[in-house]
Amino acid sequence: MKVFNYRDVEEEFEEGAQKTRIRRLITKETGAENFTMRLFEIDPGGSSPFHSHAWEHEVFVLEGKGILKGECDQEFRDGDVIFIPPNETHQLKNIGTKPVKFICLIPYMKTE
Amino acid sequence: MKVFNYRDVEEEFEEGAQKTRIRRLITKETGAENFTMRLFEIDPGGSSPFHSHAWEHEVFVLEGKGILKGECDQEFRDGDVIFIPPNETHQLKNIGTKPVKFICLIPYMKTE
Repeated sequence: MKVFNYRDVEEEFEEGAQKTRIRRLITKETGAENFTMRLFEIDPGGSSPFHSHAWEHEVFVLEGKGILKGECDQEFRDGDVIFIPPNETHQLKNIGTKPVKFICLIPYMKTE
Repeated sequence: MKVFNYRDVEEEFEEGAQKTRIRRLITKETGAENFTMRLFEIDPGGSSPFHSHAWEHEVFVLEGKGILKGECDQEFRDGDVIFIPPNETHQLKNIGTKPVKFICLIPYMKTE
């Protein structure tokens, strides 16, 4: 069993996103076979790409304030849960003055 | 796509655990096919059962301070990530003076 702080996981810039960093917290290297946990930080004005893909997102918002763009705009903030089904076009955008920080989990079977 | 606050999800007492409440945040009813997101709150002195099962846990600790009991004891606190592989005996126990709050995700395929 592993216990570690998220801040001890290397931070990378996320390709295709603006002002966005990713930490890959739980991966196949950790021993996870089914799904993977990542932590994203989007700086003010930044966003994930407006895109769609064949897998879902399960998101828990830790800090900040943003908009989930899709068929309509939905505001989100800390304490919010976001479910994005497969194949729905989406974008997460920071509309606040502090970083938006969230956990985002995706399944392995459809992506690798 | 769904956005909602975790506090708006009904809280239930978790069977087999002590002083522990669970909110089932993302489930099959939400549209999730692969894995499910739950939020647990363990009050001071409380704990999950000391048990093992065939599926893994992916955990992110939001608040509080506790001990993960297994082959050895490992302390955890807010900002920590915990990975519990399948079939490892484990227990999460609150050793602080405030509630321990964490997100815990498990796969569907092995549990239902």
